[in-house]
Amino acid sequence: GMARRKLVYEGKAKILYEGPEPGTYVQYFKDDATAFNAEKKAVIEGKGVLNNRLSEYFMNGLTQIGVPTHFIKRLNMREQLIRQVEIIPLEVIVRNFAAGSMAKRLGLAEGMALPRPIVEFSYKDDALGDPLVPEEYIAAFGWATQQEMDDIVSMALRVNDFMSGVMYGVGIKLIDFKIEIGRVWDNEFPRLVVADEISPDSCRLWDIETGKKLDKDVFRQDLGDLADAYTEVAKRLGVLPTNVTHAPTKPTLIN
Amino acid sequence: GMARRKLVYEGKAKILYEGPEPGTYVQYFKDDATAFNAEKKAVIEGKGVLNNRLSEYFMNGLTQIGVPTHFIKRLNMREQLIRQVEIIPLEVIVRNFAAGSMAKRLGLAEGMALPRPIVEFSYKDDALGDPLVPEEYIAAFGWATQQEMDDIVSMALRVNDFMSGVMYGVGIKLIDFKIEIGRVWDNEFPRLVVADEISPDSCRLWDIETGKKLDKDVFRQDLGDLADAYTEVAKRLGVLPTNVTHAPTKPTLIN
Ligand SMILES: Nc1ncnc2c1ncn2[C@@H]1O[C@H](COP(=O)(O)OP(=O)(O)O)[C@@H](O)[C@H]1O
Ligand SMILES: Nc1ncnc2c1ncn2[C@@H]1O[C@H](COP(=O)(O)OP(=O)(O)O)[C@@H](O)[C@H]1O
Ligand SMILES: [Mg+2]
Ligand SMILES: [Mg+2]
Repeated sequence: GMARRKLVYEGKAKILYEGPEPGTYVQYFKDDATAFNAEKKAVIEGKGVLNNRLSEYFMNGLTQIGVPTHFIKRLNMREQLIRQVEIIPLEVIVRNFAAGSMAKRLGLAEGMALPRPIVEFSYKDDALGDPLVPEEYIAAFGWATQQEMDDIVSMALRVNDFMSGVMYGVGIKLIDFKIEIGRVWDNEFPRLVVADEISPDSCRLWDIETGKKLDKDVFRQDLGDLADAYTEVAKRLGVLPTNVTHAPTKPTLIN
Repeated sequence: GMARRKLVYEGKAKILYEGPEPGTYVQYFKDDATAFNAEKKAVIEGKGVLNNRLSEYFMNGLTQIGVPTHFIKRLNMREQLIRQVEIIPLEVIVRNFAAGSMAKRLGLAEGMALPRPIVEFSYKDDALGDPLVPEEYIAAFGWATQQEMDDIVSMALRVNDFMSGVMYGVGIKLIDFKIEIGRVWDNEFPRLVVADEISPDSCRLWDIETGKKLDKDVFRQDLGDLADAYTEVAKRLGVLPTNVTHAPTKPTLIN
């Protein structure tokens, strides 16, 4: 039967449970989709299964090129074992083409190529709407040190080069993406790792030929079936669960 | 009819002709395969066509992520227009897994994962067999400055992250690759760009599932049909010339 798990945190798209070993969590991917700071909501059958698989795929790829991540292993259709980290409360956003909040803020056409990849930080706070913050704020409030920010920028740019390559190989343009970074202590020294998820929920992905959107904007902008879009991405990458419909139910809570 | 071209240089795998504009060359991809410093030779029908297309594909991808290259545009099945550069006489080799000369030199098993990507330099000289050289030699003989070497290492690691991603996306492991770097002068200041070619002639590519080799080692080690291996890579990437057999003949020489 299903493992009995202790709830740690329920977020908008995922649930964290205590893991089998100290210092681990089980990350459960829900089918819930939210946008515009959770003003728009829906349940998208199969989304959690796809994101669990895709995040596994991207995190494994990053590990292989030497970018550390929280990912340990996938447990089942909707769950993966991850290393518990101290999340830095920032959304680290890398942009190759103008879109979303940047296009709006600067009055740029969606899809305009940026002069170079741009890394920016939002303060992760739903009540505030995840506002864009300058590095000065981050240092001043102690969310991350300047050294950490420099390391995060380097990591984010490596993730961007790799993910741009993955997507280019399957005919997709990586417009932008968001990652979260966490601290882990191996001895006394903190190290940074990519945490949370990498999936079409956290990337903007456009078909190179047609410009068709294959990411959460399909939901934000009512462009069609979100699961179809994510399935298209997974298919191109050769990442597809054997049977999306046989997803296990949520684990039995013991707290 | 075929353009009349002025020969600049004929190498082992390619021919350079004067281009239509000053500061440009036409790079013609031959079907000639050589290995072991040209001791082993063969003509592989279609190889030049595949490498012309694949090098275009990879160089375009690098341009898109902001890594500058010599590539301007593909002209036909076997030719591409490139920017004339001052070639730095080094083979810049990036290794993710032990193979080839490194595996031999250090007695490592082929395919052993390296602790991190390693960038090394060989002095490009056929008569000497392209010997591995330490950075000290390069600085002492003036082949490149220390600043250039540092920039080359950064560029090579970016190429590695991107190319690892491209290959990962289509189920291929990037074992190692070689690039050449050239200087261009936009004003008085030299800039570095990726030159020469990026193709299965200059990469080691193993299928992730089976370990099957899809690169020039197929020729070096008599593992099967080289054009089939390159075609497999091109197919997975969605890069295939409409008709490989209708390759144009070499241009008429006017010198
Ligand atoms: N390895 C980890 N250790 C601790 N917390 C994590 C880790 N990876 C992700 N998280 C956090 O877990 C939550 C994942 O659930 P999610 O639905 O994305 O939440 P939210 O609605 O807060 O974005 C996020 O708050 C994220 O910051
Ligand atoms: N953009 C460029 N400008 C000038 N020379 C180039 C450029 N790109 C590649 N080359 C040089 O052109 C030659 C390409 O032909 P190739 O058959 O590879 O020669 P080789 O046998 O010397 O390796 C190489 O010597 C390479 O260094
Ligand atoms: Mg989240
Ligand atoms: Mg050569």
